Amino acid sequence: MRRFVVIGRDASASDDFLLEDVPGTSGRLDVGLRCVRAALLVSHGVRAATVYLVLGGGPRAPRVLRIQGGVIRFVRPDERSLAILAKKALARDADSRAAGFVEIRPGLAIARGGVDAVLDDLGHGGHPLYLLEEGAGDVRDVPEIASPDAVFVLGDHLGFDDPDRQRFAARGARSISVGPTSLHAEDAITVLWNEIDRREQRP
Amino acid sequence: MRRFVVIGRDASASDDFLLEDVPGTSGRLDVGLRCVRAALLVSHGVRAATVYLVLGGGPRAPRVLRIQGGVIRFVRPDERSLAILAKKALARDADSRAAGFVEIRPGLAIARGGVDAVLDDLGHGGHPLYLLEEGAGDVRDVPEIASPDAVFVLGDHLGFDDPDRQRFAARGARSISVGPTSLHAEDAITVLWNEIDRREQRP
Repeated sequence: MRRFVVIGRDASASDDFLLEDVPGTSGRLDVGLRCVRAALLVSHGVRAATVYLVLGGGPRAPRVLRIQGGVIRFVRPDERSLAILAKKALARDADSRAAGFVEIRPGLAIARGGVDAVLDDLGHGGHPLYLLEEGAGDVRDVPEIASPDAVFVLGDHLGFDDPDRQRFAARGARSISVGPTSLHAEDAITVLWNEIDRREQRP
Repeated sequence: MRRFVVIGRDASASDDFLLEDVPGTSGRLDVGLRCVRAALLVSHGVRAATVYLVLGGGPRAPRVLRIQGGVIRFVRPDERSLAILAKKALARDADSRAAGFVEIRPGLAIARGGVDAVLDDLGHGGHPLYLLEEGAGDVRDVPEIASPDAVFVLGDHLGFDDPDRQRFAARGARSISVGPTSLHAEDAITVLWNEIDRREQRP
């Protein structure tokens, strides 16, 4: 199953943001929410992929929200519905001592920790890891991105910090780009999927 | 200037929808709003393109909202901000006898009528017209899409009706697709822009 990891350096790890002003009150959690739609939803369907929202902002940070397409039910494309979903999940007390992801409902889980929690969840299955970065090699030249085990890591408007970059590098992550223009993270996901869809359709 | 025409067959042409439930109360105007983001916004910037939202739902239909990137100021990427923008514009009494687009503020205008109002606004400048349709020829095989005068027409979840299809066909519209998977209209716009960006960067 493909996975998309979206790093929200200031994105709220708690539910104390306003649905009436998500961009202004959540450290731009809205960016991650739109990534969920781009990663999981197609016209009249859901992709079997997983999204990790790494939330680095606010008093309960870091936490990670995990959403599994094809498992979670009733995911709607509009941002407000996704914000309500996140708000409910983040209200959950995940400060328990349990390690790893705690399931809130099927397909929706939360964990304490940041990128490390994601890497732990991946295990050591040899997932090809890709960091989306401006100016890196073109995704169209990287056949391996179509691997069903691929993991794509994207920053929000703030990009990656050095410790996270090093964590991924230590796992063999390779930098790729989706084209000459610097795009919103959700658009980068859309372009990635389009490239994967095309590879899978090729004889 | 490139143009994107999004046909919302049931999308509300009036402002009587709820910000708290845009998908459920606006005939899926939310689809068109997300298309505005995809068409106009990149990371830390705005594209010089125009979006027409053709609104076929509700008592004041049909009307068309026109948003010009690079002219309009303060366009934010989140869906709620875009819904507020649309709501204010649609509150405007456009039942005046004036033909064509009436400017509400710089870069934001409204017109009575449906696809005809868009075609009138295009004039007869020989814009290459493309209809996004599943199963049509691949955008990667159509060099002309990179024309700065290109106009791309997309349906929402309901697609095109026959009269609209005939109107575009009469203007020489060509059908194209963005890949093997049926995508949300906003994702189709993202893939189109990616292809255009790449063509423009090629020596």
